[in-house]
Amino acid sequence: MKMLINVPETVVADALRGMAAAHPELAVDVENRVIVRRDAPVAGKVALVSGGGSGHEPLHGGFVGPGMLSAACPGEVFTSPVPDQMVRAAAAVNSGAGVLFIVKNYTGDVLNFDMAAELAEDEGISMAKVLVNDDVAVTDSLYTAGRRGTGATLFVEKIAGAAAEEGQPLERVEAIARQVNDSARSFGVALSACTTPAKGTPTFDLPAGELELGIGIHGEPGRERRGMMTSREIADVAVDAVLEDLRPRNPVLVLVNGMGATPLLELYGFNAEVQRVLTERGVAVARTLVGNYVTSLDMAGASVTLCQIDEELLRLWDAPVSTPGLRWGR
Amino acid sequence: MKMLINVPETVVADALRGMAAAHPELAVDVENRVIVRRDAPVAGKVALVSGGGSGHEPLHGGFVGPGMLSAACPGEVFTSPVPDQMVRAAAAVNSGAGVLFIVKNYTGDVLNFDMAAELAEDEGISMAKVLVNDDVAVTDSLYTAGRRGTGATLFVEKIAGAAAEEGQPLERVEAIARQVNDSARSFGVALSACTTPAKGTPTFDLPAGELELGIGIHGEPGRERRGMMTSREIADVAVDAVLEDLRPRNPVLVLVNGMGATPLLELYGFNAEVQRVLTERGVAVARTLVGNYVTSLDMAGASVTLCQIDEELLRLWDAPVSTPGLRWGR
Repeated sequence: MKMLINVPETVVADALRGMAAAHPELAVDVENRVIVRRDAPVAGKVALVSGGGSGHEPLHGGFVGPGMLSAACPGEVFTSPVPDQMVRAAAAVNSGAGVLFIVKNYTGDVLNFDMAAELAEDEGISMAKVLVNDDVAVTDSLYTAGRRGTGATLFVEKIAGAAAEEGQPLERVEAIARQVNDSARSFGVALSACTTPAKGTPTFDLPAGELELGIGIHGEPGRERRGMMTSREIADVAVDAVLEDLRPRNPVLVLVNGMGATPLLELYGFNAEVQRVLTERGVAVARTLVGNYVTSLDMAGASVTLCQIDEELLRLWDAPVSTPGLRWGR
Repeated sequence: MKMLINVPETVVADALRGMAAAHPELAVDVENRVIVRRDAPVAGKVALVSGGGSGHEPLHGGFVGPGMLSAACPGEVFTSPVPDQMVRAAAAVNSGAGVLFIVKNYTGDVLNFDMAAELAEDEGISMAKVLVNDDVAVTDSLYTAGRRGTGATLFVEKIAGAAAEEGQPLERVEAIARQVNDSARSFGVALSACTTPAKGTPTFDLPAGELELGIGIHGEPGRERRGMMTSREIADVAVDAVLEDLRPRNPVLVLVNGMGATPLLELYGFNAEVQRVLTERGVAVARTLVGNYVTSLDMAGASVTLCQIDEELLRLWDAPVSTPGLRWGR
């Protein structure tokens, strides 16, 4: 597998140098692997810190900025960052109003963020944590006890980030983050496996003419493998899998997320089918986002995340955000 | 090759239906294949219309909105739209202040936009045209007489779009668009070929361990094929190819553009090397944009575009823009 890299060992550091050059509005500590919004700490504001293995860009580093994350800690590809990065990030962004860790439910991330939260509290920082576990495809996987955290992470970071930006206190920001996670579910489909720089060959074997339903964001196994399906058929399976678990009574936010290598032309076409299924099932759509947001390196495929919202969550979703990966104004 | 589609024949229409659902701020005419900003025509404002074959998303439809294009006409994949679409788009957005066609230099596009401009003038619309031909890799290609239009299209559409948005007259908007194109050069590299829905197999054969230097955005041949290179080596070749032709004395805008399937992690790492070469060559960088903007379906690889700017062009580049694919505020 050919890659646009120097050597596997420097992929993350090289990317951080490139981010630093492209985004002077961020403070990128390449050596310690922490990305911080340059104006942090913001007086009186709760800070949001997330992180996880690299390879899912723009998540998380691309979501640092006003209205979303205060800092992000990138690990090696598909590998949790270490507690030292997280404590450093928390200390850099804490204004005294406290820090919320947003943690995707993978065993390594959970352990490391737990340890980091204890260490940060020892340093006198008020800490809270929220676990993201939205993937309905499988319970327990190669990397997870319970459900995996995937696309809903974007909704949690954006909506809780807006609440923090307008000055809400830590307990309230934490409660909103938890509400968003509880209201969101995802289901993903892979048409091809991804290739990590260190391994250099696909993480699993997906034969021509087959797809994997319920895929995770590291190429870990899903629910089942089937013969190739149309966009229409995939949308039926993915949306119904989410709705079976979520049963929304309110309007939803929709994320049609590319896994990395699927062209935007196809993602928009897939969105048309996702919207068709939602209409057929009587689910009202408040907002839709289509693009590559929570990726899995060069994997082809897509995931659908729905998040049931109320007026307050919609207001926070619509609030201005200014990050490399997600940006809109008033 | 597996694709997230229904059938090849409906790929473009399906994508337009998906765009319409995701972007209520755009008026998407699926049947006639025209994407228009919903508030058009804007009184007193010059309108910008572009278009071309589909498969390069977010270009052009994703660049419709305040501060950039007034309308876009998508053709079939890698196939020029027809004059009827262009005339319809021009009529929909013309406020009386005139319409500028932005045309990438491919034979089909040039012929069709020429014909459309004549027809639109017959209908009493003041018309101007600018040709984008920034690719230094080859003169004449499978689809082009002269140089191909690639990444600079984004700079032309953004900067001329900002000039139009602030009410500058047609002759001035046209002159600015021409200045941007004259000041911009690109060079692209492919690590893999792309696959069109209609063909279903890669458009050319690129063996394991080889890359194609000077690739176009349709998989048409480049300058030469070489054994696999590092990100560092590719940046040296690409930036030097551009600088040999451009020789900038002013600061430049940098676009590090993904061809579609290359992960953002790799694009940022590649940007680090591009910035290193520019520093070594004494070229000052004003702004940098990294991401998938002018793509070639699922091709892996990247291109570098540099655009020499002055204070006025930088001011227009920094002006607010609000489109699905490019968005920033004050």
